Amino acid sequence: MQETNYPDQPLSDTSRTDQIEVGVVGLGLMGSSIVVSLLLAGHTVKAIAPLPIDSETAPNRIRDQLALCQAFDLLNASTEHYFSKLTISQDYRELRDCQFVLECVIEDADIKKQVYQSIESVVNANTVIATNTSAIPISTLQQFLTNPERFLGVHWAEPAYATRFLEIICGEETATVYAEWLYSLAHQWKKEPTWLKKDSREIITNRLMYAVYRETSALIENGETSMENIDKALRYDAGSWITLMGIFRRMDFMGLENQLETFNTIFPTLSNTEKVPEIMQKMVDIQARGTHNAKGLYPYTEEESIKWDKAFAQFNRDIYRLAEEYPLDKIEN
Amino acid sequence: MQETNYPDQPLSDTSRTDQIEVGVVGLGLMGSSIVVSLLLAGHTVKAIAPLPIDSETAPNRIRDQLALCQAFDLLNASTEHYFSKLTISQDYRELRDCQFVLECVIEDADIKKQVYQSIESVVNANTVIATNTSAIPISTLQQFLTNPERFLGVHWAEPAYATRFLEIICGEETATVYAEWLYSLAHQWKKEPTWLKKDSREIITNRLMYAVYRETSALIENGETSMENIDKALRYDAGSWITLMGIFRRMDFMGLENQLETFNTIFPTLSNTEKVPEIMQKMVDIQARGTHNAKGLYPYTEEESIKWDKAFAQFNRDIYRLAEEYPLDKIEN
Repeated sequence: MQETNYPDQPLSDTSRTDQIEVGVVGLGLMGSSIVVSLLLAGHTVKAIAPLPIDSETAPNRIRDQLALCQAFDLLNASTEHYFSKLTISQDYRELRDCQFVLECVIEDADIKKQVYQSIESVVNANTVIATNTSAIPISTLQQFLTNPERFLGVHWAEPAYATRFLEIICGEETATVYAEWLYSLAHQWKKEPTWLKKDSREIITNRLMYAVYRETSALIENGETSMENIDKALRYDAGSWITLMGIFRRMDFMGLENQLETFNTIFPTLSNTEKVPEIMQKMVDIQARGTHNAKGLYPYTEEESIKWDKAFAQFNRDIYRLAEEYPLDKIEN
Repeated sequence: MQETNYPDQPLSDTSRTDQIEVGVVGLGLMGSSIVVSLLLAGHTVKAIAPLPIDSETAPNRIRDQLALCQAFDLLNASTEHYFSKLTISQDYRELRDCQFVLECVIEDADIKKQVYQSIESVVNANTVIATNTSAIPISTLQQFLTNPERFLGVHWAEPAYATRFLEIICGEETATVYAEWLYSLAHQWKKEPTWLKKDSREIITNRLMYAVYRETSALIENGETSMENIDKALRYDAGSWITLMGIFRRMDFMGLENQLETFNTIFPTLSNTEKVPEIMQKMVDIQARGTHNAKGLYPYTEEESIKWDKAFAQFNRDIYRLAEEYPLDKIEN
């Protein structure tokens, strides 16, 4: 990260989200959900829909999500109030006063390049520009900008308006001041942001989950246990502490005295396979898309697929609220 | 698993826990917490305290835990009602009518052998005898019994009375009928039991978490992220779905179409190290015991250590209840 090219004028106070206009380019599923998150945070949102189909479908999708937020008691005002602070357009000039613009278009470097040029042609020199990519390195995309130091990556978790996860990723040329500003702003979005020092394409937790998949593949293939058992054990064991503690705090809580021995014993026995589990090839062969086409690792009826969508939305609301009750200073002595 | 030596008389109906006496040998921290779980399930519990110190400390510990359960609204009757169904003794003859006896003594094979002989000398031939060990293979301990086919392992998660996790592990000589009976009985304890087909010392989720530790060590040591960031990301990302779905259901929910490619890309890049992270050696050197002596991976004041105990107890109650709301058939269409 270079420390040059600092903004001429100081970046704005992040606590006044009502005075900070933000932009979102790309209104697919993720883009829409992020728009809702930014509206809830109090921003005026300028959305650019480069695809005509998104201009048609996005307004209803966003209204539906706002209605869901209302049902879940996440709003401080009417859905109309929030919706009135959103402009959807195909004209990039709408972004001219935005202090933050997020690109959420498809994973195609050429298209993204055009988008960045369109954004930079209208915004101020110190507007923070970010990408939602999980496929292309930030340092690569950064090359497409005239002012690359204000460019960075932001990973969200779905649904963006009811999850606290947010990952900020700097590229090689990102100036710290912009990441700091976004890190601060993200707290106004009620996120618990993390800040990755190295340019990382994968969401860190995705990577950790693949370490789990690798180990489970070994356990399942040698007949030690089943997919169902692993899901049950993770739900009721890991689930009973992970939202409160993460894994390192958990280790402190369980006591550290035997950990050295346990690491020494278990590490050499963990799976190192590069072989993809057979079941994944099978899923591709049958064109399984999980709950989305009622064909997956588990069996689904169409009715059950719909129920899983609802269950996830509800669970997200519940765990989002539950997490809010557990900063340590809220626990009474 | 052999299928011989089936019980002469059928094992009892598991739905009438009030008619099933159960025994627990060893009243340390885990043993006490398991006693509370079994009392809550409606059993008459015969506890054997081989150590005189446990006879002194266990009654108050169990009363305190029952009071906590009452505060958490987990009881259907007074704490005294539950406590009155518990007998603490040093005399193994108290176990004579028990249909299930769990051994929770220290991880010493010779001591465990004596305990099993004492139990078998008083109980019926078809009483299920189990161990809470996570250090000695079930198949090894099984050799110490006259009727090894009714012996198996049971892993609990702390606190046993407010977690749904339960792992049943068969040894080589365990007869399926006994594991089936315990699996059924565990549902009466409001557990979501898993049944491991192979003799496994480690709790499966522990093993999976060590796969995560291995990967995080690599990410932290090469400067990609920090312990704090990983805990945050796991709390707010994995935490937002793990209790609802586990990892395989989650994969179905996210859609499977790109998984083959992702597995192929990520597996070869995951850490294969056997090297224990330096921080763990450091923790041993400073005799860190985490929240237990206010010295750990994170800094703690004594006050904070106490708060973490409280936060965990409360969170457990909350997530225990939350999980109860999410069987799929409770989700409305």
